[in-house]
Amino acid sequence: MLESAEVGHTIDKATFERELPALREDLLGAQYELLEKARFPAMLLVNGLDASGRGETVNALKEWMDPRHLRVHALVEPSQEERERPEAWRFWRALPPKGRIGIFFGNWYTLPLIARVRGELRAAELDQHLDEILRFERMLADEGALILKFWFHLPRKQQKKRLEKLEADPATRWRVTKRDWAHYRLYRQFRDVAERTLRQTSTAHAPWIVVEGTDRYYRNLSVGKTLLGALRHRLAEPETPGPATEPPLPERIDQHNIIARLDLSQKLDKAKYEKQLPEYQGRLARLTRKKRFRDHSVIALFEGVDAAGKGGAIRRVANALDIRHYDIYPIAAPTDEERAQPYLWRFWRHVPARGRIAIFDRSWYGRVLVERVDNLCTEHDWMRAYSEINDFEEQLVRAGAIVLKFWLQISPEEQLRRFKEREATAHKRFKITPEDWRNREKRPLYERAVLDMVDRTSTEIAPWQLISAEDKRYARIEVLKTLCERIETAI
Amino acid sequence: MLESAEVGHTIDKATFERELPALREDLLGAQYELLEKARFPAMLLVNGLDASGRGETVNALKEWMDPRHLRVHALVEPSQEERERPEAWRFWRALPPKGRIGIFFGNWYTLPLIARVRGELRAAELDQHLDEILRFERMLADEGALILKFWFHLPRKQQKKRLEKLEADPATRWRVTKRDWAHYRLYRQFRDVAERTLRQTSTAHAPWIVVEGTDRYYRNLSVGKTLLGALRHRLAEPETPGPATEPPLPERIDQHNIIARLDLSQKLDKAKYEKQLPEYQGRLARLTRKKRFRDHSVIALFEGVDAAGKGGAIRRVANALDIRHYDIYPIAAPTDEERAQPYLWRFWRHVPARGRIAIFDRSWYGRVLVERVDNLCTEHDWMRAYSEINDFEEQLVRAGAIVLKFWLQISPEEQLRRFKEREATAHKRFKITPEDWRNREKRPLYERAVLDMVDRTSTEIAPWQLISAEDKRYARIEVLKTLCERIETAI
Repeated sequence: MLESAEVGHTIDKATFERELPALREDLLGAQYELLEKARFPAMLLVNGLDASGRGETVNALKEWMDPRHLRVHALVEPSQEERERPEAWRFWRALPPKGRIGIFFGNWYTLPLIARVRGELRAAELDQHLDEILRFERMLADEGALILKFWFHLPRKQQKKRLEKLEADPATRWRVTKRDWAHYRLYRQFRDVAERTLRQTSTAHAPWIVVEGTDRYYRNLSVGKTLLGALRHRLAEPETPGPATEPPLPERIDQHNIIARLDLSQKLDKAKYEKQLPEYQGRLARLTRKKRFRDHSVIALFEGVDAAGKGGAIRRVANALDIRHYDIYPIAAPTDEERAQPYLWRFWRHVPARGRIAIFDRSWYGRVLVERVDNLCTEHDWMRAYSEINDFEEQLVRAGAIVLKFWLQISPEEQLRRFKEREATAHKRFKITPEDWRNREKRPLYERAVLDMVDRTSTEIAPWQLISAEDKRYARIEVLKTLCERIETAI
Repeated sequence: MLESAEVGHTIDKATFERELPALREDLLGAQYELLEKARFPAMLLVNGLDASGRGETVNALKEWMDPRHLRVHALVEPSQEERERPEAWRFWRALPPKGRIGIFFGNWYTLPLIARVRGELRAAELDQHLDEILRFERMLADEGALILKFWFHLPRKQQKKRLEKLEADPATRWRVTKRDWAHYRLYRQFRDVAERTLRQTSTAHAPWIVVEGTDRYYRNLSVGKTLLGALRHRLAEPETPGPATEPPLPERIDQHNIIARLDLSQKLDKAKYEKQLPEYQGRLARLTRKKRFRDHSVIALFEGVDAAGKGGAIRRVANALDIRHYDIYPIAAPTDEERAQPYLWRFWRHVPARGRIAIFDRSWYGRVLVERVDNLCTEHDWMRAYSEINDFEEQLVRAGAIVLKFWLQISPEEQLRRFKEREATAHKRFKITPEDWRNREKRPLYERAVLDMVDRTSTEIAPWQLISAEDKRYARIEVLKTLCERIETAI
């Protein structure tokens, strides 16, 4: 979930300065509309790594909007008065009333997270805290609150660099404490706990929005635009009783992202491919025949645009496996029987027993990809799917499954070339339909959906593997290699 | 939450046989309508004590409806095939499709509960299970499922009697196993774990319905009518996308209940009262001055119909306390400031610090009493309030608060007498308003709301105290005595 905040998001100063005046005006306008209508409160949670620019961004927001109707709370160590009451008391006290904006820089996540990173809280205890937080946020959403949770992240190197820079400048030296360096040394733990927390508490009504903190123009513009989008979305809604609708997913304001970053020029020549293919297939075959493998199962799913080479990659994997040990499930439109059940039912029915391998050609991610893009389900349905899918995969992993999720990426040009090749080849013609051409036109929507999907479902227990598939040989070997490595680590 | 299943609910045979034909016809009708529309599945969970008649009731339902479209699952010990997959796999497999009814006699609650009763699971681990169950049921409700969870309960004596009776009859002897007797010996633990589970997992979209199992006519008729009511409620709704509305609260089919059971004839003569009052007040004064009391707070709330004597009881309590140590909060309509916040905010602001006492004259229960009866909030709002209130009180208790909830009960005749007395007495006239007379007419609705409130919010950590207040002196001494005893136990 944090991958997309390690790609080096930047906005150049000129763009920032060009966009800022309009953003400020719009934010102020939205703030006044919120105040006037007084239909709901807005709560911004600001969490993340030290030195990731949280404070600077909060200051920017305060500067951009009317600070009289916006309160910033830094609820970290409780006061004596607070200590004598239930933990949640201070959060209740600080809730913004309808019409106002509250920024919680230091909030209900802060202390449990730090305690877990320092090892003062066990995993099950953190879960109990998170469970209570979920109930609290559910109640807030039921009461109509708009809740945006920002997680500021930095790659490790960047955190170090920023801490050193702050320390070198006499004007900012005071901001870097011993505690910050102690936390920096716990970077790995912090990242793990953050992943777990984000996975468990990113709900449709109170989503986490991961922000890369490296570049301040990017960071501030991104948070400002996300806030503006969410305010406008809610303000435009008709006033109805009952719980609020979900805030929209954040806008993507630069061209840097985990897909764009993929190096599609990677190639493998035929000779190397023909040497490596049997090597990896042999390694996979041996791994899946090991006695220890019987305590596990493998669930490998393949997603990608049309003609990205999913089928070919799957065949190369299957060739290495014992025919009695695996099943391939091509996922198309659901059957009548499947339609009469909850969405994930059609995948649960194919969950493999221990010792077995299930390969999915397309998967449960259809809901947040094609079903989202083609409006085949409601927004509420695909928004809640992210956390349902995370729950599903957590259950799989806990039962011993090794879950591999491959996204095969090709350029639009390569896709076009393959489409034409398919049309020209008699035995491949069946593979290309008018639907494929239509999907091609929706590519920007798909890319957006893929980025949101990776942001919300790439977890430490079931990460997305983004594979450059421009060269089929390279992609197939990458898939086999990843499979072998993940199985080796797990068993 | 289980109190109302220990009052000896019964339906006589004649009533049962008179009502049954219509119920069967209606249930069958609803079942076919469900099947034809195929808009949602219905899931009945059947849990509770051994020998509480669960099996008999499930059999009755099967007999009353078309068994071809209704499946009963007894998912207790997992099979080998099930053991090799995630725990939830077998539940997914058994989900009824849209249009069908699934009865889960043995379900996702069964094993965690038994494991906890036997001490094989720690409290935090049970919570983790319950948390997962909550997510699962939330997903089911989001997918449109109608979920009814029946908890069959028996007073301890009744359980013993039923086990012995089954054992004495050669035809039913096989049904009583050693395990049943072992569970019977764990009655107390079972009751505690049930209370905790019901408290944490009774949600508006998947409520627990507690059924007293003693009398089979009552039990079967009650479950049948609740199912019918819920099916009809959902079938009558327009088909809209998005999550389902909550099932209605169960009908109450007999006159036995925890309010009706109160002995309103209890009296205390003046001489005894005047002797006991200073004794209890003294005891309370000493208790609240103890050093150990400083680690606790007391939150005592008073609810009851108009003129039930809340004010008088509160004064007798307050007289025993140090004026610097307590506050009394009379709860009327919310202020503008309070209206701009989530419902519980106005009570959170008055949460006392350790060592202090807060007395609420009416309370957060207004939402499920007057606001429900007078339609001052939506059904969704008061339905979700039950679990929000339980969460709130759990946080209070965990922070050291001793939470006392008094319901003062008087008969309609006594209320009338007091109203008239108030009108006749100059200095009491301000206490009686046209509103009070209107409320009197809504008494049946209020009584229903009180019963639902006690069923859903009387928990092991914050039980309701139902006080017979027909005689003011008796009520005041009962309140003081309960306060003293609860504080003594806690500190």
